[in-house]
Amino acid sequence: MEVLYGLHPVEEALRSGTGRLDRIAIARERRDAKLEHLAILARAANIRVSLEPREQLTRLAKTDMHQGVVAFLRDRQFLTIEDLLAAKPLHQRRFFLALDGVEDPHNLGALLRTADGAGVDGILLPERRSAPISATVAKTSAGASEHVRIARVTNLVRSLEQMKKANIWIVGLDERGTPDYTDFDFVTTDCCLVLGREGAGLHDLVKKTCDHLLRIPMAGQVSSLNVSVAGAVVMYEAMRQRRGSSVQQETAPTKPAKKPKGLGSI
Amino acid sequence: MEVLYGLHPVEEALRSGTGRLDRIAIARERRDAKLEHLAILARAANIRVSLEPREQLTRLAKTDMHQGVVAFLRDRQFLTIEDLLAAKPLHQRRFFLALDGVEDPHNLGALLRTADGAGVDGILLPERRSAPISATVAKTSAGASEHVRIARVTNLVRSLEQMKKANIWIVGLDERGTPDYTDFDFVTTDCCLVLGREGAGLHDLVKKTCDHLLRIPMAGQVSSLNVSVAGAVVMYEAMRQRRGSSVQQETAPTKPAKKPKGLGSI
Repeated sequence: MEVLYGLHPVEEALRSGTGRLDRIAIARERRDAKLEHLAILARAANIRVSLEPREQLTRLAKTDMHQGVVAFLRDRQFLTIEDLLAAKPLHQRRFFLALDGVEDPHNLGALLRTADGAGVDGILLPERRSAPISATVAKTSAGASEHVRIARVTNLVRSLEQMKKANIWIVGLDERGTPDYTDFDFVTTDCCLVLGREGAGLHDLVKKTCDHLLRIPMAGQVSSLNVSVAGAVVMYEAMRQRRGSSVQQETAPTKPAKKPKGLGSI
Repeated sequence: MEVLYGLHPVEEALRSGTGRLDRIAIARERRDAKLEHLAILARAANIRVSLEPREQLTRLAKTDMHQGVVAFLRDRQFLTIEDLLAAKPLHQRRFFLALDGVEDPHNLGALLRTADGAGVDGILLPERRSAPISATVAKTSAGASEHVRIARVTNLVRSLEQMKKANIWIVGLDERGTPDYTDFDFVTTDCCLVLGREGAGLHDLVKKTCDHLLRIPMAGQVSSLNVSVAGAVVMYEAMRQRRGSSVQQETAPTKPAKKPKGLGSI
């Protein structure tokens, strides 16, 4: 059983209709409109609501930042890479996100939140070397961890190769990459953006699997952005290009050169 | 005296040449190439280096995440709004960032790091209702807090009015704003981007001071992005427009309508 806490994350979980919510507990001492509202929502969805002492909630949430509400979720059923590939695309062209060893729960939460905001089709998360979808991740994601489509994969390189076979371009982000991310054509290509570890970046094998390594220009003294910020900059650039007015489409950046051979693509 | 810790932040502080570094302390127990390198850099810059027990560093840094090095900085001398306005612009058009109550040190650190990366001319930080430039902020910013130009202001609204008088557009980010941030012309306007509090957004008075309220489109279920992510998306869109190739300049989004009257601008 997974534990979720805080007004916003619990409300998002209630609204998401994932069917994973088992019950919610509300602080007995605190009676306010927002908590009442949550209780009404929960009862309307046939989810049990209990009133419990505040300290009990703190014990359950393992923090006193629960704002008077804790929810219990049945364990998440992750998708497979096949599920992601079989799903109907959200837009004309698909955009996936793969995380190669993002271990900080705040970064993971922010990335899931941004992926939801930018309309990403699905996220590949390796089973090892990656933060689990914890209560902290759920809270940092403002509930997005419940909405976005996540496939848990055992071997990221193998999954990326599988994506290539489905004609999806694998695009890594790298300090020494080229071209700039703004010069990549996100309009006419299905692609999967791969983000590396905090500090160390992409693993060598993952880097070799990428069709392109893109770079975010850095104007100042620091050599890279925080991984959740870097991911957001590229996801929103893809969204900008794809939502683009007719004017923007006419001048969309040049399509990348022919898909390189011998990299597992068909 | 301010305390900074960690290999990367201390190296950045050494390289920044701010003249604020007083001395550095290195863990006696840990001898490795990176720490040796820091000691050489420090001595070359006439900064005292001492070897101290690891536990002493933990006491000084108030955490054991110091990676064997702690630096002591003389208190930061903040700039004034006049300093920011008087400085030579980094680019053809100026771009400032104002933070209206960002209280989470990780968000502040990430914003300073992104501001450095996107080549922002200066940052306005209110004295109250804002995270101080702590060791956590310095570390999260990967040292950028030492490089970026920061003015500490007592009254943010008054400072923004002062910017308006210098013909700088005040552009807030707001969930209910319009137009989309990608439709704003960052190429031909000097501007100051204002970001609000985590959760609650801009204060009413600050919002009223803005010439424009821009919106970041949200494709999914969640209604907003994390503030450091939202700030990054807009800062890098401004950079993209400004760096733009000739093609991009030709098709730059329409210039906003005439500067509205009666909002303190001249």
